[in-house]
Amino acid sequence: MVTFEIKIRVRYNETDRMGYLHHGVYPVYLEIARTEMLRSLGTSYRQLEDSGILLPVYSLNIDFKLPAFYDDELTVTCEMKMLPVVKLIIGYNVYNQNGQSICTANSVNAFVNSQTRKPIRAPESFLKKFEQYFDQD
Amino acid sequence: MVTFEIKIRVRYNETDRMGYLHHGVYPVYLEIARTEMLRSLGTSYRQLEDSGILLPVYSLNIDFKLPAFYDDELTVTCEMKMLPVVKLIIGYNVYNQNGQSICTANSVNAFVNSQTRKPIRAPESFLKKFEQYFDQD
Amino acid sequence: MVTFEIKIRVRYNETDRMGYLHHGVYPVYLEIARTEMLRSLGTSYRQLEDSGILLPVYSLNIDFKLPAFYDDELTVTCEMKMLPVVKLIIGYNVYNQNGQSICTANSVNAFVNSQTRKPIRAPESFLKKFEQYFDQD
Amino acid sequence: MVTFEIKIRVRYNETDRMGYLHHGVYPVYLEIARTEMLRSLGTSYRQLEDSGILLPVYSLNIDFKLPAFYDDELTVTCEMKMLPVVKLIIGYNVYNQNGQSICTANSVNAFVNSQTRKPIRAPESFLKKFEQYFDQD
Repeated sequence: MVTFEIKIRVRYNETDRMGYLHHGVYPVYLEIARTEMLRSLGTSYRQLEDSGILLPVYSLNIDFKLPAFYDDELTVTCEMKMLPVVKLIIGYNVYNQNGQSICTANSVNAFVNSQTRKPIRAPESFLKKFEQYFDQD
Repeated sequence: MVTFEIKIRVRYNETDRMGYLHHGVYPVYLEIARTEMLRSLGTSYRQLEDSGILLPVYSLNIDFKLPAFYDDELTVTCEMKMLPVVKLIIGYNVYNQNGQSICTANSVNAFVNSQTRKPIRAPESFLKKFEQYFDQD
Repeated sequence: MVTFEIKIRVRYNETDRMGYLHHGVYPVYLEIARTEMLRSLGTSYRQLEDSGILLPVYSLNIDFKLPAFYDDELTVTCEMKMLPVVKLIIGYNVYNQNGQSICTANSVNAFVNSQTRKPIRAPESFLKKFEQYFDQD
Repeated sequence: MVTFEIKIRVRYNETDRMGYLHHGVYPVYLEIARTEMLRSLGTSYRQLEDSGILLPVYSLNIDFKLPAFYDDELTVTCEMKMLPVVKLIIGYNVYNQNGQSICTANSVNAFVNSQTRKPIRAPESFLKKFEQYFDQD
């Protein structure tokens, strides 16, 4: 299993007239956590794209439990339970600065050839970086 | 059952370097469809909020099937199967201009008192506008 | 001179905790007005890009006079005083539904070759659509 | 004079189909730099708002010189040349990781009473934090 966490501060423009972090911003925070997790494992998502592999989102499920507010410093955790051979499946938890879980989510991304836009298997060089974190029996 | 549809044109800033409508924009499109559905039924969401009732999102599930592109004119359909007594549960389908379904989704919003931020029952005046669309046995 | 106007409704996620349309959204509204003005003159900005010409923004000046609010239906007017031979220079005025001018702005875009990313002259086919609106002495 | 700088990484959703950081995101980056500059001087913008003072933007001028790209780590510098008695006037410079200036800008914010929404003088406690940086002859 791979786990990762990152802190993200709520921007002013991301709040809405309720005073809440708008729910449409959470997918962006999840994406930041996801790409920073990849970076922490030695994979730049930018380089991945530049090498001809896209990782579009296939599904996203989000449960909002408590609101977040302007200037809150949130912690987004990621958890990847399976080696991302054809799909990158990640679970998320978002915590506010009081340690309360305010949101849980999961996402599925698939590897796609940037020319053909068809699904492909993750490149070996990519998988190599993850293998040590998963049981290989 | 209540159904509704609206057309939304993809803005330039909503695309990303893949050339796709960024997945984080879909919650915004769903929200627009949801509020315009309410407007079509005689309820302005702005007036609802001004009268002291908020409708924060509690959950959001989105499946992305095909990408959308800059300047596409998408059709977002909404379907509400239950009278929104304490929750507003809506199913969505997003179609591109070729009539292909590119995304399905559902959302749950709850009625909240804007002062106490506690869940409440939808106001009678609100429910009155929906009752004709649902079986009342 | 070319003039154009378009109505844009303020989206919920575009408001901030002050309850105002966030100032960072105005460039997006100006861009929508600009591209719809081009469309009204027979030029799709998407087709322009697909044909290898980009129109990045070089400068943007905005004066904010009055706030706009959620669900406001704003009118954005555009005015182009010069034939866009190498630059597209546009003046804007944004009005709220009470007819008050809430914002004035101007933008400069330049024509750029999408391969070389170097400035170019606007294509003749593009200019042809504008010539009738400008004095040609 | 007060100067400040902050690093901001370009998010995926902030890019557009040209592959550029969308020009509409720069006002957001400037705002982040502005509020972090205030924080560095001991003033939380959130607390300022909570105490009844808003700081809406009155004008914004931006010159875009070079594009920024996904995952770039930009440096935004701020420079405040005058004590912000009734207005906060700030000059900005945005640099890419190669040290190139890609954007210059300036903004004017005004102090406004959040109840009356009328312009006011900055509170003394706020000004106190800035006075040491300015000549007081």
